[in-house]
Amino acid sequence: MISFNCDYNEGAHPEILRRLMQTNLEQEPGYGDDKFTISAKEKIRQAIQCPQADITFLVGGTQTNATVIDAVLPHYGAVVATETGHIAAHESGAVEHAGHKVITIPAHEGKMLAADLRKYLSDFYADSTWPHMANPGMVYISFPTEYGTIYTEQELAGIHSVCQEYEMPLFVDGARLGYGLASPAADIDLPTLARLCDVFYIGGTKVGALCGEAVVFPRGNAPRNFFTIVKQHGALLAKGRLLGIQFDTLFTDNLYMRISHNAIDLAMKLQAIFREKAIPFFIESPTNQQFPILTTEQMKRLEGKVSFEIWQRLDDGRAVTRFATSWATSEENIKALQKLL
Amino acid sequence: MISFNCDYNEGAHPEILRRLMQTNLEQEPGYGDDKFTISAKEKIRQAIQCPQADITFLVGGTQTNATVIDAVLPHYGAVVATETGHIAAHESGAVEHAGHKVITIPAHEGKMLAADLRKYLSDFYADSTWPHMANPGMVYISFPTEYGTIYTEQELAGIHSVCQEYEMPLFVDGARLGYGLASPAADIDLPTLARLCDVFYIGGTKVGALCGEAVVFPRGNAPRNFFTIVKQHGALLAKGRLLGIQFDTLFTDNLYMRISHNAIDLAMKLQAIFREKAIPFFIESPTNQQFPILTTEQMKRLEGKVSFEIWQRLDDGRAVTRFATSWATSEENIKALQKLL
Amino acid sequence: MISFNCDYNEGAHPEILRRLMQTNLEQEPGYGDDKFTISAKEKIRQAIQCPQADITFLVGGTQTNATVIDAVLPHYGAVVATETGHIAAHESGAVEHAGHKVITIPAHEGKMLAADLRKYLSDFYADSTWPHMANPGMVYISFPTEYGTIYTEQELAGIHSVCQEYEMPLFVDGARLGYGLASPAADIDLPTLARLCDVFYIGGTKVGALCGEAVVFPRGNAPRNFFTIVKQHGALLAKGRLLGIQFDTLFTDNLYMRISHNAIDLAMKLQAIFREKAIPFFIESPTNQQFPILTTEQMKRLEGKVSFEIWQRLDDGRAVTRFATSWATSEENIKALQKLL
Amino acid sequence: MISFNCDYNEGAHPEILRRLMQTNLEQEPGYGDDKFTISAKEKIRQAIQCPQADITFLVGGTQTNATVIDAVLPHYGAVVATETGHIAAHESGAVEHAGHKVITIPAHEGKMLAADLRKYLSDFYADSTWPHMANPGMVYISFPTEYGTIYTEQELAGIHSVCQEYEMPLFVDGARLGYGLASPAADIDLPTLARLCDVFYIGGTKVGALCGEAVVFPRGNAPRNFFTIVKQHGALLAKGRLLGIQFDTLFTDNLYMRISHNAIDLAMKLQAIFREKAIPFFIESPTNQQFPILTTEQMKRLEGKVSFEIWQRLDDGRAVTRFATSWATSEENIKALQKLL
Repeated sequence: MISFNCDYNEGAHPEILRRLMQTNLEQEPGYGDDKFTISAKEKIRQAIQCPQADITFLVGGTQTNATVIDAVLPHYGAVVATETGHIAAHESGAVEHAGHKVITIPAHEGKMLAADLRKYLSDFYADSTWPHMANPGMVYISFPTEYGTIYTEQELAGIHSVCQEYEMPLFVDGARLGYGLASPAADIDLPTLARLCDVFYIGGTKVGALCGEAVVFPRGNAPRNFFTIVKQHGALLAKGRLLGIQFDTLFTDNLYMRISHNAIDLAMKLQAIFREKAIPFFIESPTNQQFPILTTEQMKRLEGKVSFEIWQRLDDGRAVTRFATSWATSEENIKALQKLL
Repeated sequence: MISFNCDYNEGAHPEILRRLMQTNLEQEPGYGDDKFTISAKEKIRQAIQCPQADITFLVGGTQTNATVIDAVLPHYGAVVATETGHIAAHESGAVEHAGHKVITIPAHEGKMLAADLRKYLSDFYADSTWPHMANPGMVYISFPTEYGTIYTEQELAGIHSVCQEYEMPLFVDGARLGYGLASPAADIDLPTLARLCDVFYIGGTKVGALCGEAVVFPRGNAPRNFFTIVKQHGALLAKGRLLGIQFDTLFTDNLYMRISHNAIDLAMKLQAIFREKAIPFFIESPTNQQFPILTTEQMKRLEGKVSFEIWQRLDDGRAVTRFATSWATSEENIKALQKLL
Repeated sequence: MISFNCDYNEGAHPEILRRLMQTNLEQEPGYGDDKFTISAKEKIRQAIQCPQADITFLVGGTQTNATVIDAVLPHYGAVVATETGHIAAHESGAVEHAGHKVITIPAHEGKMLAADLRKYLSDFYADSTWPHMANPGMVYISFPTEYGTIYTEQELAGIHSVCQEYEMPLFVDGARLGYGLASPAADIDLPTLARLCDVFYIGGTKVGALCGEAVVFPRGNAPRNFFTIVKQHGALLAKGRLLGIQFDTLFTDNLYMRISHNAIDLAMKLQAIFREKAIPFFIESPTNQQFPILTTEQMKRLEGKVSFEIWQRLDDGRAVTRFATSWATSEENIKALQKLL
Repeated sequence: MISFNCDYNEGAHPEILRRLMQTNLEQEPGYGDDKFTISAKEKIRQAIQCPQADITFLVGGTQTNATVIDAVLPHYGAVVATETGHIAAHESGAVEHAGHKVITIPAHEGKMLAADLRKYLSDFYADSTWPHMANPGMVYISFPTEYGTIYTEQELAGIHSVCQEYEMPLFVDGARLGYGLASPAADIDLPTLARLCDVFYIGGTKVGALCGEAVVFPRGNAPRNFFTIVKQHGALLAKGRLLGIQFDTLFTDNLYMRISHNAIDLAMKLQAIFREKAIPFFIESPTNQQFPILTTEQMKRLEGKVSFEIWQRLDDGRAVTRFATSWATSEENIKALQKLL
């Protein structure tokens, strides 16, 4: 059985395991004061060209979203996201658990439009009863989105500009950041992203690590006592080295982008295979998640041999499916799928 | 430099890394549905002799304490701990962040006495204004305590009995559980602990794992939708296999207890060395943390060669220190310390 | 200047002030143990024909919604409301502040349809990833709704039936309950309402009181230690007598319904006046809030003489407005408006 | 039966009821935009000699404490109080419910000492693990304290000075402020208090009002969007006029201080009566709460005729009791008590 279900079905990139083994018995202090963490931070600062960046390694995505949002927002504030945004739909109420409303505005193939954001904010403050409503205090988007789509530099700059006008930090969820940046459709890189937002994270869990997300405040703008906030959210790892070693490895010799490119190359091959078979797509995704619409017969042919996600069942019996590639996907598996279809 | 600072200065037991490597490219589902996690749970159920136990793997200690307390308490309830309890003193307000007061009662060498607990509860309900005060809804202790001391079966049974009388679940923080159970002073084992409390966790982070704590509801008594609660607390790991593989390894061939015994054996040697030198102890600890009171001269002799924690500075210039052994401590390091003292 | 802006522009019904004066220096215990509160509860139990009802007096609407929702939901649960529901749009994030997501489903003239609720719940549990999403734990509707519309007995029974099927309590916000029940369109009364939901409140602030809302758990089903929960939410009044006297007065000689009828009678006259002038309505409201669509000229004619709310500006220059009557509205004011239009 | 149980056993000062009646049918906007509230704020600004003060009227004490603390603290911060502080002991966990730990330091007859506060803070930051502990972000004291004692100007200045040194706002709970300032032992007045803290409240509920507490940020230093924060805490009254009229009345012709003096004069008479009978006091209170230690026989003599609070039962059968006077206490009742003793 070959799984295309998601991008976290395997362990870690072998180089990460090698480094964990190699350093295993070196004694280092806990909580991120170890030399691996210090080195990883420095390498990320170079990769994003932000020598002043505050960088903190957290463990997982939901945790990172909830912690960053709670840290950045005034405690009575709300976060603005699209209707299909991950924090709006799939975080089990973690953001609300920390006390913050998620205000939703329309999504366009998963993306937020600067114009929609401006309209929402302008309408909000035009209504004199706004102090009776949850106050928008920051904006959340993800890169890529839930539908695998990505923002262009211009789109991102547009959203950031509205955020600055309203003095709201812009937070970019980069759980799959590598797969977005490696996309042939991407016209931004890490330094550009860092310039066009106020906080973002570089996803490790879905891009080669066992676990770990690197939260970046690019201009040294981490909230005061962010360390305590992280601990209060249960997001501080005693053996910080586990995260430090992984990100140090991912940011050595450009490994993070190299393995992201593998996922994208194979996703493009996957796309081509589906197109060959005249299989339509639910959405044109330029990243590692592909959403072909399969017939019952096509799905039957894969049964027991290839697994994938059912995204949405259509009335005509067909289904929108999701096939995800990752750093670990092999050419062999792609070819095996091709044969079966 | 040899570090006795804590029990999380190294990586993981080599066998764990070996298993991680060996299984690395096997595709398994996320969020704890992988075969390693399923196997690990089964092995723990056998080790604690509770076939009905609900077991969930979380990532770290603060997170586990905050999640379990929030899950078990009624949302308006408070948790009772000793003044020196970890959640009262060292959790950065994580329990309160989730909305719960930590009510403190006296500590005796770090331990809670059943009699103190009963007196507190009996006084509480005798005061007719109790509905105006935070309502105690559960009890928290740790095994071993912050001072390395442990409860006897009788003491634990006494506390549990008070808890049952007042219908309050008893939660045992076992961040260092192995080191408590392996102590020569311990008269309980895992099945006994499981019988004498309502929820506990088996600490991995400090006992050989890279990260991970196994939360156990011994009688299948996990709160409804505990999975969602865990996710809401940011404590759900996408690659659940990372925790599953580690605990599966720790509970294969009794590894968890075997490596715990190593720590205790060496802690006892450490204790003997200090005694030999007529160095007094702040507290008689039968577990892996030892608290010798060192003179300035003694500390100077170790400077730059052996590191440890300063627990408390005394007025006469001496200091209560903490030396911790662990699964990773070697005889060589103990001998090196002996020579330096 | 005559105000039709809202139903809380005046003080209290004169009979309430008379009772406050009359009883002012009688010494009574605090926190709701006074004889007035006890009597008021008994009168409400009779009015709703629920001798077992648990009744608690809180101070205001937002507070009541936030407290009841937090008390009734499991702490990790979410509340389902319509998109236009008061808690979704106008409570400043108070529900989320207590940790709960407000899940929204479509509104039909402000109302929730049982069919929409069933579809949402059935889709929710059909999605195997539901434990990753906020779990719906209760349903919130208001009677009347934000648009002045009301549920028929059949509609209410339909929603309640879905709630029971999914074991979710149904909460009815009755901030303007009297104005709903007094409507000529209403086919339910207080006992029927009490039978068709699990908790509701009888609004005092907008129906003749200075402040106060009576929370009713009709079948003695208040959450355990609800008193402490209320206090924890800052909703416990030291001088509970202030609420007790007011509700005791409102439920003596049917005063609550009598003054509600005054508001409705005058609202119907208002409606007739607008119709006479061929002024269209945004929505057909059978209660004390009317939503005529006025031209700029019509609004100009009222300027400086009659005030009202602008609900929404239309593209053609007209505006949806809101005119509210109340227990305090006089025939004279209605006539004055008629002349001006 | 005469009650000395507390200072909220009666309704409101008659002048307040008179004003409520007189203004009852005047139409005024809600939420504190009414003319009475505006006037009341202005009168308080004059009384405290702070023309820039931000003033907000809330409903009750627990609510005010929880709202102010949550508004002033960083969301991850903790509040420092004495062990006997009202928020530490008697607020049902309301402060923790909003996410904040209450850190306690010793109390001296209910009071905090600047020296204790400095020592706590200095020790806290001397411990390098402080970021792992709840961070103190503000200081809470009450005037008078739970034991009726009051701070001198020097003591208050000392505490404020430590607060400024550590950049922590000082919050003074003035639920019984009038009774403190009217004490013969008081060497401060309202302007002095306003100068020596960062936020305080002027208690209405216990000093002549039906309900209401006036929160004062003396230097225009209310947190941004405090209005929304207040609403989010369920503390915004729709009919703000109810609070406005009451405080406008209390601050007209010095009524607030005049009725406070009545309570103090009678408390001093009460004290003299107990002393005459050689009845000892648990604590020397210079305010409206007196704590005589009564024998069983003395208590029996009062049974059924005079009621009071049992503060604490002593081992010898005697009891520390609390007798409270208020704005409503009459000379007759004092004389009646004198005869019975």
